[in-house]
Parts: sequence; C-alpha cells; structure tokens
Amino acid sequence: MPSIHDLETPAVLIDLDRLEANVVRMAARAREAGVALRPHAKTHKVPEIGWMQMRAGAVGLSLAKTSEAEVFARHGFPDLFVAYPVVSPSKADRLMALSRRVRLCVGVDSIEGAEVLAAAAVRSGQTLRVSLKVDSGFHRVGVDPKDAVSVGSRVAALKGLSLTSVFTHAGQAYHRADPKDIERDNEDEAKIVVAAALGLRQAGVPIETVSVGSTPTSRFGFAHKGVTEARPGNYVYLDRTQAGLGTCSFDECAMSILATVVSVSGSDRAVLDSGSKTLALDMLRPKPDGYGLIVGSTSRLSALSEEHGIVAVDPGDVFKVGERVRVLPNHACVVSNLHDRVYGVRGDRIETVFEVAARGCVD
Amino acid sequence: MPSIHDLETPAVLIDLDRLEANVVRMAARAREAGVALRPHAKTHKVPEIGWMQMRAGAVGLSLAKTSEAEVFARHGFPDLFVAYPVVSPSKADRLMALSRRVRLCVGVDSIEGAEVLAAAAVRSGQTLRVSLKVDSGFHRVGVDPKDAVSVGSRVAALKGLSLTSVFTHAGQAYHRADPKDIERDNEDEAKIVVAAALGLRQAGVPIETVSVGSTPTSRFGFAHKGVTEARPGNYVYLDRTQAGLGTCSFDECAMSILATVVSVSGSDRAVLDSGSKTLALDMLRPKPDGYGLIVGSTSRLSALSEEHGIVAVDPGDVFKVGERVRVLPNHACVVSNLHDRVYGVRGDRIETVFEVAARGCVD
Repeated sequence: MPSIHDLETPAVLIDLDRLEANVVRMAARAREAGVALRPHAKTHKVPEIGWMQMRAGAVGLSLAKTSEAEVFARHGFPDLFVAYPVVSPSKADRLMALSRRVRLCVGVDSIEGAEVLAAAAVRSGQTLRVSLKVDSGFHRVGVDPKDAVSVGSRVAALKGLSLTSVFTHAGQAYHRADPKDIERDNEDEAKIVVAAALGLRQAGVPIETVSVGSTPTSRFGFAHKGVTEARPGNYVYLDRTQAGLGTCSFDECAMSILATVVSVSGSDRAVLDSGSKTLALDMLRPKPDGYGLIVGSTSRLSALSEEHGIVAVDPGDVFKVGERVRVLPNHACVVSNLHDRVYGVRGDRIETVFEVAARGCVD
Repeated sequence: MPSIHDLETPAVLIDLDRLEANVVRMAARAREAGVALRPHAKTHKVPEIGWMQMRAGAVGLSLAKTSEAEVFARHGFPDLFVAYPVVSPSKADRLMALSRRVRLCVGVDSIEGAEVLAAAAVRSGQTLRVSLKVDSGFHRVGVDPKDAVSVGSRVAALKGLSLTSVFTHAGQAYHRADPKDIERDNEDEAKIVVAAALGLRQAGVPIETVSVGSTPTSRFGFAHKGVTEARPGNYVYLDRTQAGLGTCSFDECAMSILATVVSVSGSDRAVLDSGSKTLALDMLRPKPDGYGLIVGSTSRLSALSEEHGIVAVDPGDVFKVGERVRVLPNHACVVSNLHDRVYGVRGDRIETVFEVAARGCVD
C-alpha cells in the first residue's frame, strides 16, 4: 500500500475515517429530523464521495453549475438539483437535454430567468421542475420573502415549468461570531422558506419540497415544522472556518494539505510550497486570521502568493528546509476546485485516489 | 468564424491585438537595454503564447514548479529556468530527467536545497546549472544579500552543481502606491543582484547570468550595468492591479472575463455567474478595492463567493438579468490557473482557443 511519504507535495489528503464519520453523522441528523438530505456536491466534486452520501441515505445531490450537473449525470446520479439561477437559453437547452436522463430540478429567482427556462422546456417538449429561491437574510440571490408569492405564482403559471419547490441558504451564518446568531439563522432559514411555501400553497401552487441548507446552521438541526429537505455541503470535509464557527472540532476536519518547507530565509518565517494555487485566498471566518493552520503547531500561514505559503513562525516553533507539514485549509470547497485529484488516506496509508471530476466546472 | 456571443459564460477572453502588442513591447524593451528576456510563463501557462514570446526574441522561459517545466518541455521548449527552490529528492530526480532533454537551470536559496539537487545530479551522472536567489527586499524567499557570497560559494563547491547565475524578484513593487517607490525597487533589484554577482566572481564563482524581473519594475527598464536577463511575466496579459500600479493603461489589458448577470434581487446589487472559482480572491493592489471592474462601467465586484460575483451597482448603472458584461480581473495569472481554456479574440470574433496546458501544476 503506498504511503503519503511517497507523494509529491503539495498534495491534498482526505482522512477517510473522518470523511465516513462526517457523511454518516449528517445522514443520521437528517433522518432523525425526518427530512430528506440532498448534499451540495460542490465541496468534494467527486462522484465516489457523492455515492457515499447516496449510500448513507441522500435522496440526490445539489450542484451549482450546469456543467457540474452534467458531470454527475454522466457518473450515473439519478436525481440532481441545480441550486443556481440559470438565465441563458443555451444553458437552459443543456439542462433540458439533461432532464431526459435524470430527475432534474433547477433554481429560479427571477421572472426573466424563469421565462428562459420555460421557453427551453417548451422547445424540448418537456416540463421542467423548478424551485424558487427565497432570500433568508444572506442578500446574495433569492427573491425578497415579501415577493415570494407574487414571483412564484407568475413562475408557476409559465407553460413548461412546474414549480413544486422552494429553497434558501442562510450563508450569513458564515459571518457570525456568536453561536446564538447561527441558531437564529437556522430558525430564520426555516421560518422564511416555510412561510413562502405556505403562501404559495394558499395561492394554489402545489409546493412539495421546502429546502434549507448550510453546514453552519445544520448544527442546530432540521427539526422545523414544514421543512422537508436539507442541502448542507461542506460537512463532508469540514475545515478551519467550520471549526472557527463552532460547527466542528479540528479533529473532525477530513481535508489537509501535505506541504514541504522550501525556504527558511528569515528566522521569523518559513515558506511552504503551497500558496494560493493550492489553498486559495479565502479568509478565515468569522474573523480573518491567516490562510491556514499548520497541524500540530500554533503557527499559521500569514500570507500566500501563488506558489508560496508564508508561515509566521511562532516563537519556539522551528521549521527546517525539506520538512513536511500538514496544513488545515480555511475553506475546503475551494481547495477541491484547485486540484485534479485528492488522496484518500488512513493514517499515512493511501487507500484510494479520488479524481475531482467536477473540478473547474464554471459554466 | 465563431463569435463570443456563442460562448457559454463565464469564459476567459484574451484580446489578441493587445497580447501581441504586449509581447512585442517587452521584447523591444529588453533588446534596447541589451538584456536577454526570459518571461515567466506562469501568467499564461499556454505553450502557444510561450512560442509567441520566443518568436519575439525570448531566450527561454521561466517557470515556478517542476510540473510546469515538464509541461513546457513536452511542448518542445528548449531552455527553461525553474525559478523556485526545489528541496525534495524526488523532484530533483524529475529535474535531472528533464535536463537530459532541455537546457535547464534551477533556483536555490539554501544549502539544504542545493545538497538535494547536487545528490540527484551525481546520481544521474550530470551537472545541473543552478541560480542563487537573492532577496532584494521582498522578504519571501532568497538569501539575505549579505549571505550571498558565503552561501553561493558553498553551493558552487558542491559536486554535481554549476552555479553560474544569480536572480531576484522585487515583488515588493506590488505594494507601492507611489511610482517613485517602484522606480527605487527597480534600482534596488538590479543593484543587489549585481553586487551579489560581483562578490561571487571575486570569490572565484564564474557568474554569467544576472537576472531581475517583475512586470511593475520593468516599466523603468533594464538598463542597469551588470544585469544580463529579465524575467517579467504578467506583461503578456496585464490586469487591473498593473493598471492601478501605473504599469499600463486599462486599454492594454488583454484578459477579460465574459460573464452573465444571473440575479438582480436588490436595487443596489447585481450578481454575475463569475465568483472566486472564475476570478480568484486576489485583492487589488496597491490598495484593495473589490475583486474586478466591470468594463465600460464604474461599478465593481464588491464580493465574491465561489459561483457568485456581487456587483455593487453604482447609482445610474443598470444591470438586467441575462445581460452579458466583461470583467477586468484584479490578477490575470491566477485566472489562468482556474480555467482549462481561454479564448483568443479580435473584437467579438473568436480566432483561436488556447488550452491552458500548465494549469493546476502545483508540484
């Protein structure tokens, strides 16, 4: 069995024991709350890990981009949700081609976007299931809750579309320093999307699926009356940000980056062969504090250039040229997107290599 | 001829007129100064663009990682410089394999790293050309100038290595608000590395190549006595940061991202389908100001999540769902690393597609 000591660095390691535990834990949480689990696959972008989630009880996967859905459909996944507003005719046509092969649902948050999807559905002679995104406080995409019934009713009336779902994402939870605020986000996320579903049903739109989802809010469970589905993503790997938010302990984080010290040209710094091309520049949340933690040390990466990770060396820490270290990344999802493959390990043994099949799917 | 209107978004566009002008301009600047040009290919990672640089007179290319050099060697480039400290035996062996096929030189900034390279050279029965990196004020990697002669002499004495070059990179220029400071960096860069070369020659080490290089400092030319080579990289594309530093005008920037407005859910914001997976989170330098500029508008990207670019809409600007815009990125090099291909365009016509052959080469 090959060992991580045989790997060139930088290399992305996935602790399989932790990954498996994370997959099982979230599946149990959803089952106990009586909601369907539809994990967002953006975190791993790996079909094999998607199948682990399905075997643990997921009903299907969530994705952002059309091209990601195409990759997962090619790998046999039967039920996909594109949780992103698709507004261009060519992408809508691609989605209609996809919907011949998989059970598909697509996000909408505007009439203009819905009209594009409807036209493609009519062109293809199919009906497309769509889900209305409602803003539960993140203020990124999603209709204002007060407009949910009016926009949803107009979407539902479009020939070619079937509006049977509403969804939201409380991304604001990533910016909370106080767990009480995340608990409130968890409640808001549910309350707002359930209210939208009720309003739409009263207006005659037969909403079946009421979907919430973010890993930080999932810590407070899914047991809200009216919620039927959850879409957390990051939970498979977890990361330094989730630990900072209180979602998990460091010991639950499954992803680390094996890196080599390439230069120690000043006594207060060491340089790793892992810069922003390996770790990305995502800041630690809720409070910025460097770009990754050196495992087993209090030193952290204070700056990244593309190929250089600058370690601000804590007094007492010593780094030597050629030495290997492990870095806990701030944000696991973006690391996945930077690497063609990641290594599944138990201890130092490499048990499997995962191709990151949906890496780089931007469109 | 296909048009950019046929492309799915996001898509990376390279304005070929500007690219060609940028390649020719830097080549002329080097020629006039009487220095060899060895562009850093990290900016484009595209063999065809490397060949454009060679045809314009470059003597070879610079690269950071061993795997990048392997890609460019596979594409026939005869003369490569790995401008990065290589410190692991397995990479050193890969470099020795490469040096059978191309004229190779490799950076060193420590005795420990040099010993690893020397051992690999002896194992392979070859002599490896190495270049000593000297810190000219960036304080990232590179030996302190006062240690250049002592470290260089020890490196030169190692069996298997031939130290015939010194190099530096004044990356601190990226943080300067005042052009006068960049002009001083340009002088320091030359002065420090020339002094190291003279010191080493006096110590009996036959330094031939004295290499400087950064795009911001290159604006002030290479006409320093003793400098023999320059390694700018970003100049082929340029970007919003270079414009901010005064290196170029916006009209010289060759790279833009074609993006679509996917949501306008608030009157003060619009959301593009281009987030950090497309543009990266590199801050504008020398002064942070969002994550990219909308071409033909004063509005800028105020925040990015992975698949969402949040436009802070200036009063008077209007963005409509489905509308396409072009984004001028903060940092071109990192955009290259996020995309499998980029489109070479003249006006709206797509003239060629460049595969980003050395994308994702982290090791």
